[in-house]
Amino acid sequence: MGCWPECLVSPFRKLWLATVSFCRKMKKLADDDPRRVLHSLKVGIALTIVSTLYYVTPMFKGFRSSTIWAVLTVVLVLEFTVGGTLTKGLNRAVATLLAAALGMGAHHIAILTGDKGEVILLGFFIFIVAVIATFLRFMPEIKKRYDYGVMIFMLTFSLVGISSFRDEETFMLAYKRLLTIAIGVAIALVVSVLVFPVWAGEDLNMLMGANLEKLANSLEGLEALYFGEKVKVDDMKIKGALLQSYKSVLNTKATEDSLANLARWEPPHGPFWFCHPWKQYLKIGGLSRRFACLVEALSSYISRSQVATELEKHGNIREACKEICKESKNAMIVMASSVRAMTKLSDSKQHMAAGTETANRLKISLFEGGLLQTCTIVSLLLEIVSCAQEI
Amino acid sequence: MGCWPECLVSPFRKLWLATVSFCRKMKKLADDDPRRVLHSLKVGIALTIVSTLYYVTPMFKGFRSSTIWAVLTVVLVLEFTVGGTLTKGLNRAVATLLAAALGMGAHHIAILTGDKGEVILLGFFIFIVAVIATFLRFMPEIKKRYDYGVMIFMLTFSLVGISSFRDEETFMLAYKRLLTIAIGVAIALVVSVLVFPVWAGEDLNMLMGANLEKLANSLEGLEALYFGEKVKVDDMKIKGALLQSYKSVLNTKATEDSLANLARWEPPHGPFWFCHPWKQYLKIGGLSRRFACLVEALSSYISRSQVATELEKHGNIREACKEICKESKNAMIVMASSVRAMTKLSDSKQHMAAGTETANRLKISLFEGGLLQTCTIVSLLLEIVSCAQEI
Repeated sequence: MGCWPECLVSPFRKLWLATVSFCRKMKKLADDDPRRVLHSLKVGIALTIVSTLYYVTPMFKGFRSSTIWAVLTVVLVLEFTVGGTLTKGLNRAVATLLAAALGMGAHHIAILTGDKGEVILLGFFIFIVAVIATFLRFMPEIKKRYDYGVMIFMLTFSLVGISSFRDEETFMLAYKRLLTIAIGVAIALVVSVLVFPVWAGEDLNMLMGANLEKLANSLEGLEALYFGEKVKVDDMKIKGALLQSYKSVLNTKATEDSLANLARWEPPHGPFWFCHPWKQYLKIGGLSRRFACLVEALSSYISRSQVATELEKHGNIREACKEICKESKNAMIVMASSVRAMTKLSDSKQHMAAGTETANRLKISLFEGGLLQTCTIVSLLLEIVSCAQEI
Repeated sequence: MGCWPECLVSPFRKLWLATVSFCRKMKKLADDDPRRVLHSLKVGIALTIVSTLYYVTPMFKGFRSSTIWAVLTVVLVLEFTVGGTLTKGLNRAVATLLAAALGMGAHHIAILTGDKGEVILLGFFIFIVAVIATFLRFMPEIKKRYDYGVMIFMLTFSLVGISSFRDEETFMLAYKRLLTIAIGVAIALVVSVLVFPVWAGEDLNMLMGANLEKLANSLEGLEALYFGEKVKVDDMKIKGALLQSYKSVLNTKATEDSLANLARWEPPHGPFWFCHPWKQYLKIGGLSRRFACLVEALSSYISRSQVATELEKHGNIREACKEICKESKNAMIVMASSVRAMTKLSDSKQHMAAGTETANRLKISLFEGGLLQTCTIVSLLLEIVSCAQEI
C-alpha cells in the first residue's frame, strides 16, 4: 500500500469498510430469520412467473398496457405471511370488482345528461366517492381490516370514471383491470401458500414464546444483581443487559394485534387446525406487558435506593426474594417452551406453587411488622414523584 | 305501524337503527377531530384537479393510458399530515427516477444479446432486483423511512423491463411514468401544504399534551379512590374510569415514533420554526410511559390488597399520600398545558417542589421504622408472582 498516496487510499478504505459492515448487517438479518431470504426468493419467483405469462401466452396480447396491473398486484399483494397476502388479495379483488361495477353504473347515468353534463356529473361522482372513502378510512374498524380495500375502491372508481371522459371503452378497461388483478392475486396466493408458507399464527406463537423468555431473562438479571452473591464486574454488564430485556416486551402490542388480525384470516394449518387460539395469545400478551411493567417499577426502584445495603442486614428476606425470583423465572421458561411447542402446561404449575409458597411465608413473617402494604404504596408514590420530576 | 305485519317491519327497523348508529359513529369521528373532514375534502379536491387536467389540457393527449399514474399517485401519496405526504412523495419520485434509469440501462444491455437472450437476461434482471429489494425491506433502517421507495423502485423496474419485452417504446413508457408521477406528487404536495395543512409535528405535540393529561387524570382517580374521603357509588365509577386512563399511554410508542419520523421531514412552520424539538418529545414520551408503568404497578397492588383498611389506621400517612398525589397531578396538568401552548415550564416546578417536600417528610418519618425499602421490594415481588400465576 506504500506506493499509493494516503488521500487516495483512505476513501477507498472507507468505502470498503462501509461495504463490509453493510454485508455483515445483511448476513445478520438473514441469520436471525432465514425465512426472510425465502420470502425474497418467493417475490422474485412470483414476478418472474408474471413476466413469463406475459411473454409466452397469447392471452395478454390484447392487453398490452393492462399487464402492469398484474405485475403491480403481485408486488403489492405478496406479503411476508399467508394471512397478510390473503387479506390484501381479497381486499384488492373485492374492492376492484365493486368499484368497476359502480364506475360502470356512474358512467351510464352520466352519459344520459349529454356531453357537457357528463363531465361535470362524473367529476362530481369522483369527488363524492373520494371524500366518503377517505373519511371511512378514519374509522378504527375499517382501518384495521379494510383500509387497503377502501383505497383500492377509490382508485379503481376514479380510473374507470376518468377514462370514460375520453373513450367509450370504459367497459373494456374495467374488465381488463379486473381480470389482470385477479391473475395477480391468484399468482401471489399460490406462491404464498405453496412455496415455504409463513403463517402469521406461527409468528404470533413465536413472539409469545420470545416475550416470556425475555421476562425470564429479566428475572434472572434481577436475581443475580440484587438478591444473589456479589457479582464480578464482567458479569455485571451481562446481567444488566439481561435485566433490560423486559423493555422490548412493553412495546409489542402493535405487532401482536396485527399478527392476531392476520392469523384470523388464515386457512387451517399446523397443530391447531381449525381452532387457532389467537384470542388466548392476546390475553397472554396483555399479561406479559403487565408483568414487564411490574419489573420496570421494581428495577427502577431498586436501582435508585440504597436497598442493597438494607437487604444485607436482612439475610432471610434476601434469601426468600432470591427464591421467589428463581421459581418465577423457571415457571416462565417452562411456559415459554410449552407455548413454542404448542403443548399444554404442566411443570410450570409446580414452580409457580413453590414460588407462591415462599411468597406467602415471607408475607406472614413481614405482616407482623404491619407496615408492609403501607410502605409499598408510599415508596411507589415516591418513585412516581421522582419520575414526574424528570419529565 | 299497526297495519304492517311485524315480520316486515322488524327488518326495516333494524336497518334504520343500524343506519342511525353508523351515522352517530361518523359524527363522533368528525367531532373528535374536525381535520378528518378537511382531509377528506382535500383528497376529493386533489382528485378533481387531476381529472380536470386530464380533460381540459391537451398535454395528456398522447398519454391516454399513462394518466392513471397521476391519479394513482395522488390517491397514494396524499397522506393526513404534511410530513407523510412529503415522505411518500419524495420516496415515490426518487424511486421512479432511479428505477426508470436503471430499467433503461438493463434494456440496452439485454438487446445486445439478441432476441432469445434478451428475454432471458431481462427476466434474470427482474428476478435479481425483486429478490434484493424485498430483502432490503427487512432492514429496520430502510423499513422505517424508505420502505415505500424500495417497493416503488422494484415495481417501476419490473414494469419497464417487462414492457421492453414487446415493444421498443421502453423509453416513452419510462418517461411518461416519470412525468405523470411527478405531476401527481406536485398536486398532492400543493394541496397538502396549502389547503389547511396538518403538521405531524403539531400532532406529536398534541399527543404529548394528551398523554400528560391522562396521567394527571389517573393520579386524580388514585387520589379519590384510595387516599381521599369515602366516595359515593356513582362517583366510584367515574373515578375508576379516570384511574384507567393511564392504560392508553402505555401503547402510544408506535404512534409517537412514526409522528416524530414524519416531523423530521416537515419544512419549518409554526412557533418552533427550524428547531422542532421532536427529540425532546420522544424523551418525554419515554418518561410518560415509565410513569404509566409505575401507576399500573401501584394501582394493581392497591386494588388487590386490603390496603385501604390499613391506611385508615395511619391517618397521617394517608394525608401525606393524598398531598403527593395532588401536587403531582397539578404539576402534570401545568406541564400538559405548557406543552400544548409550546411555552416554557414555570408553575409546574412549584408544584413538583411541594410534592417532593411532602415525599421527603414522609420518607424520613417512615425511615425510622427502617423497613420501608425492603417492604416495597417484597410486595412488588409478591405482585410479580401473582401476575406470573395469571399467565
